[in-house]
Amino acid sequence: MVRLPETQRALVFDHFNGPLDIQKIPIPEPKDDEILVRILYSGICHSDLHAWLGDLEFFTELPLIGGHEGAGEVVQVGAKVKDWKVGDKAGIKLFNNHCLSCESCKNGNEQHCKVTQNYGFNRSGTFQEYLVIRAIDAAKIPSHTNLAQAAPIMCAGVTVYKALKQSEVKPGQTVVLTGAGGGLGSLGIQFAKAMGMRVVAIDNKIKKDHCLELGAEWFVDGFDTKNVIKTVIELTDGGAHGVVNLAAAKQPMEQTFEYVRENGTIVFVGLPKDSRITLDTSPFIFRGLTLKGSIVGNRADVDEAMDFVARGIVKVPLEKVKLEEVAEVYQRMLDGKINSRCVVDLSF
Amino acid sequence: MVRLPETQRALVFDHFNGPLDIQKIPIPEPKDDEILVRILYSGICHSDLHAWLGDLEFFTELPLIGGHEGAGEVVQVGAKVKDWKVGDKAGIKLFNNHCLSCESCKNGNEQHCKVTQNYGFNRSGTFQEYLVIRAIDAAKIPSHTNLAQAAPIMCAGVTVYKALKQSEVKPGQTVVLTGAGGGLGSLGIQFAKAMGMRVVAIDNKIKKDHCLELGAEWFVDGFDTKNVIKTVIELTDGGAHGVVNLAAAKQPMEQTFEYVRENGTIVFVGLPKDSRITLDTSPFIFRGLTLKGSIVGNRADVDEAMDFVARGIVKVPLEKVKLEEVAEVYQRMLDGKINSRCVVDLSF
Amino acid sequence: MVRLPETQRALVFDHFNGPLDIQKIPIPEPKDDEILVRILYSGICHSDLHAWLGDLEFFTELPLIGGHEGAGEVVQVGAKVKDWKVGDKAGIKLFNNHCLSCESCKNGNEQHCKVTQNYGFNRSGTFQEYLVIRAIDAAKIPSHTNLAQAAPIMCAGVTVYKALKQSEVKPGQTVVLTGAGGGLGSLGIQFAKAMGMRVVAIDNKIKKDHCLELGAEWFVDGFDTKNVIKTVIELTDGGAHGVVNLAAAKQPMEQTFEYVRENGTIVFVGLPKDSRITLDTSPFIFRGLTLKGSIVGNRADVDEAMDFVARGIVKVPLEKVKLEEVAEVYQRMLDGKINSRCVVDLSF
Amino acid sequence: MVRLPETQRALVFDHFNGPLDIQKIPIPEPKDDEILVRILYSGICHSDLHAWLGDLEFFTELPLIGGHEGAGEVVQVGAKVKDWKVGDKAGIKLFNNHCLSCESCKNGNEQHCKVTQNYGFNRSGTFQEYLVIRAIDAAKIPSHTNLAQAAPIMCAGVTVYKALKQSEVKPGQTVVLTGAGGGLGSLGIQFAKAMGMRVVAIDNKIKKDHCLELGAEWFVDGFDTKNVIKTVIELTDGGAHGVVNLAAAKQPMEQTFEYVRENGTIVFVGLPKDSRITLDTSPFIFRGLTLKGSIVGNRADVDEAMDFVARGIVKVPLEKVKLEEVAEVYQRMLDGKINSRCVVDLSF
Repeated sequence: MVRLPETQRALVFDHFNGPLDIQKIPIPEPKDDEILVRILYSGICHSDLHAWLGDLEFFTELPLIGGHEGAGEVVQVGAKVKDWKVGDKAGIKLFNNHCLSCESCKNGNEQHCKVTQNYGFNRSGTFQEYLVIRAIDAAKIPSHTNLAQAAPIMCAGVTVYKALKQSEVKPGQTVVLTGAGGGLGSLGIQFAKAMGMRVVAIDNKIKKDHCLELGAEWFVDGFDTKNVIKTVIELTDGGAHGVVNLAAAKQPMEQTFEYVRENGTIVFVGLPKDSRITLDTSPFIFRGLTLKGSIVGNRADVDEAMDFVARGIVKVPLEKVKLEEVAEVYQRMLDGKINSRCVVDLSF
Repeated sequence: MVRLPETQRALVFDHFNGPLDIQKIPIPEPKDDEILVRILYSGICHSDLHAWLGDLEFFTELPLIGGHEGAGEVVQVGAKVKDWKVGDKAGIKLFNNHCLSCESCKNGNEQHCKVTQNYGFNRSGTFQEYLVIRAIDAAKIPSHTNLAQAAPIMCAGVTVYKALKQSEVKPGQTVVLTGAGGGLGSLGIQFAKAMGMRVVAIDNKIKKDHCLELGAEWFVDGFDTKNVIKTVIELTDGGAHGVVNLAAAKQPMEQTFEYVRENGTIVFVGLPKDSRITLDTSPFIFRGLTLKGSIVGNRADVDEAMDFVARGIVKVPLEKVKLEEVAEVYQRMLDGKINSRCVVDLSF
Repeated sequence: MVRLPETQRALVFDHFNGPLDIQKIPIPEPKDDEILVRILYSGICHSDLHAWLGDLEFFTELPLIGGHEGAGEVVQVGAKVKDWKVGDKAGIKLFNNHCLSCESCKNGNEQHCKVTQNYGFNRSGTFQEYLVIRAIDAAKIPSHTNLAQAAPIMCAGVTVYKALKQSEVKPGQTVVLTGAGGGLGSLGIQFAKAMGMRVVAIDNKIKKDHCLELGAEWFVDGFDTKNVIKTVIELTDGGAHGVVNLAAAKQPMEQTFEYVRENGTIVFVGLPKDSRITLDTSPFIFRGLTLKGSIVGNRADVDEAMDFVARGIVKVPLEKVKLEEVAEVYQRMLDGKINSRCVVDLSF
Repeated sequence: MVRLPETQRALVFDHFNGPLDIQKIPIPEPKDDEILVRILYSGICHSDLHAWLGDLEFFTELPLIGGHEGAGEVVQVGAKVKDWKVGDKAGIKLFNNHCLSCESCKNGNEQHCKVTQNYGFNRSGTFQEYLVIRAIDAAKIPSHTNLAQAAPIMCAGVTVYKALKQSEVKPGQTVVLTGAGGGLGSLGIQFAKAMGMRVVAIDNKIKKDHCLELGAEWFVDGFDTKNVIKTVIELTDGGAHGVVNLAAAKQPMEQTFEYVRENGTIVFVGLPKDSRITLDTSPFIFRGLTLKGSIVGNRADVDEAMDFVARGIVKVPLEKVKLEEVAEVYQRMLDGKINSRCVVDLSF
């Protein structure tokens, strides 16, 4: 049994866009089926920013402790929990406490269960030192894994990994990643490569070297290229077999339909602020295309994605920050000045 | 060897929307790898109307003999053809002479081959008594099959059958068919039922009895129902598992996204004149939906669809007309006055 | 809250092949995450007989209350259970309390979890009036369902339904069921038909009418037919697309490889006493066959199978017996004198 | 138009196990739908040895020119061939002239068509300088590909590549290759790695370094390891997700069932002389296993496999020999003294 302090530090806000205060709050106790996790690292996701700004108001409860990409160690184990012991490494993800009983849950699509609780949105998240979680919802992190690396896999990593699976691109085939140089894209390039896919990275030209170093086979400047569509079709010898759209903007989303190959699959992940796009159904039908929406992944997807990181195949380019610096990171996000995943270091 | 007349009758037009003349033209001879088919019945498809009107100009060559839903008997067999003999029943479909060598062809997606020839569009179609076709492109029709029934399967039948396969709705699950009372829908209801699906038919209320008699479990009036979306969600206990959209209009297409269930699949088949719709990507992503475009099917799909008709499981509600009456049928189509599939009887 | 008696009746045996006594035992209380179910009907499965005989000793704990096909009503609900209320209809199946955390559980293959508890084998089963079960393991039975019909779905029904899914036979294709006239087969014929498959039933000739009435398209006498293999190949025009083997004997199992079509799939369900068969790998490889083992199903499979019964599409041919008659039923099973599913009526 | 000599050299035998003579024979002319290929390299496969020995008598016609792994250049093109031109690089595989009309052909399983012609077995093979082939059966080899490398892909390469696809092992999961150090295995390790799989190589210990250098993550000595089954289960943390069996012997085939994971898939490729093995169906059923037979692949599989070689991802360890040396190679094969793929160099 680990000896716990009386209180813990947590980053709290009371109203949208309001001050982010570090408060001393009590450490919760795990129920019979829960574990208490000492969070050591927590990734900062764009949706944390949006939760704070109030853009996802319908989904959010105040006051709120944000964060949903946690990695840490188990310090207490509920009475009935059998699969965890103190000292195990555990990950915390966005959706939890799904009902286990609905059609989505029974079919392994728990991310679409309608009764989930959402850490960092309608339940205290990972921007605190201690957090309880239902044991079966926590991700097993292999013991030798670097926890700072593990944290961003809990949302960014699993999201892009699952989307790549959904794309049904086979080893040896081509996949386009839009917004490839960003947080999800930087992981996506590596996952895609590890899955045998050949990556066309599309992003701003300042991300070119970054994308190629991570393993992209081709880079296309999405802003200054005269004809993005024609360029992708030529590079991929007739169109990409699949696309994972991470860019949160209308134009790149609509372009995907034109440079994907006959029978190809496009997976939409990025959520633009104005989420309505125009779809020309005629070529979509004639060319036999498939479009999928994908959000995070299920528990098996998390384990699979984590395994690539544990094995050192996928490496998260990250910048460690302190809890005090989260507000500053949000500002840099708003200014478009984040080049890697920021991870809050809660380990000391 | 069948004794052939010197000429045959064919329905020809020289310019779009121009007169449809019955002309006496020569009977072609099959090449080594072709067969000559005596067309006995030919379905009249909406796209025949559009070819004549010039709506598909890019796809069409003049002068033209329309028709792409043919069924008849083999009367001559090319020197190298092994799988056919005189007297066999054969079907003629839209896409033919695909290259057999491209990625689409090698993967059984020959309907997406870029070098196909298209009977009734850029090659003389089935509104004539005799037609040559590459032997491997003709559909084998079981010997006991009613050929008038078989004809509409070559386009309408295979199209809706393939779309139902693409919907990935499993036996016991629910599928919505929009435009369910029309030519494709009338077949679709029966195919879906034969595949174990539970059908929600949406159409104009005058089609209600028709749809229920064909096997729909529920009917929804798509025009006068207060809230189509809510109604479908209630009937299907949470949303349909899949949708095959046959309606060629914007509103029903956009509604599909809202009444389909989490993780459900929508298949677009119907081509609206203005083919651009609005897609709200945010719920599409959050709910993990899939959208597919589907057009006709491959040769295996044709055989499978035909088998349901040969077995008497699917029955085409049809009206036989003469070659002279095709112009009149086009006018009735324009007036929305066709209640079943019109099939040209060329048998006498 | 339902008022409960002080004790309940249960059918207990202390040693293998020993007396089956009806005892008065206490009614258990549900824990926080459990429900208490008043069992009204319990199917009698061949494996109940084998548990009693001691054939599955490694899997069994004594003394034992057998039974694993229960259907009844919820009478108490644990403090934390949200999805159940008193009066709901609930089903009890073989495997329960799987860990929810292993790779099999996370991928929806909970039937392969290594830590399940097994009602009627190593935990008191459904041959008693009251039973507690973890709430998420109980099957939701639609309110209007006949519970005597529902009971056998919990094992026999889901087993054969899942195997049919595993066969990957598509609507319109042919499937062979061996042992088609037995308990599983009688359900299997109906499920297969409801899934659009065309059924070849193989069994003893006395089962012929029974199989054809249930919906088989063809019947083959598995004992007196000169050449079963050739007969099946002829009936199916080249070999069956799939096979579900329910017969628990060597010869029919080995025959399946010979009458299945190229690329076909064989699913083994029946467990012969001597479980070792000979597989000739050369034709297996040349013909591109697939062989699968299938046992029960997951929770989603149970719900799907139950839905066919709730809708009246699949009907269980059953004989109601009293708890006192189970020993007698076991004897009739040993004598091969059971023609339908025996269901213990515990409702009075 | 390429100027051709009057005769060509070919390696002919008249009776099984008889002399292998180099004869001067005429150069065939391509028919309308054929191309004439100048064979530059031809792999020597174990089945060439067996054809010569007469082990596959039922499949073989005498006198015979063996060889079915050809790579060369197009020198003449039939009158109706559109997709090929003189100078293109072309590959020759085992099965050809499939009917294009049967259920297998229409579904892209042409390797299971019953009317194929088989180069090197019942039709003159690739141990000659010039060969005609139906244009659609020849494999397109990208122009920059090393043809000596390309040749063994036409049989060995596509066979093991297809089997790996059939294993359904996902990127990040484990696959066992038995006989991993042989001709197929050496390619299989590289394909598996390129597909993101983690490879356990099983073979004789003298192949250890070879296997690890090619990319295997673990090596297991299949002969001297005390407990192969336990070892594989430990290395793979509970059993391999899939197995591709290349070893042509009973014991390794039977072992696969025991070290594969629950729900895992075993693919049989290797053909033992005595092809009958014992299958214990009880654990096979309880553990939900899948067994598949796989032989070569279809035309799309060939293209996909070739692409890995063209890109330099998969490299064939090969030894070039002259046509005169084939008999000697057969002897070395019989003596088990071949460490890489022997390729006949016909280029001069």
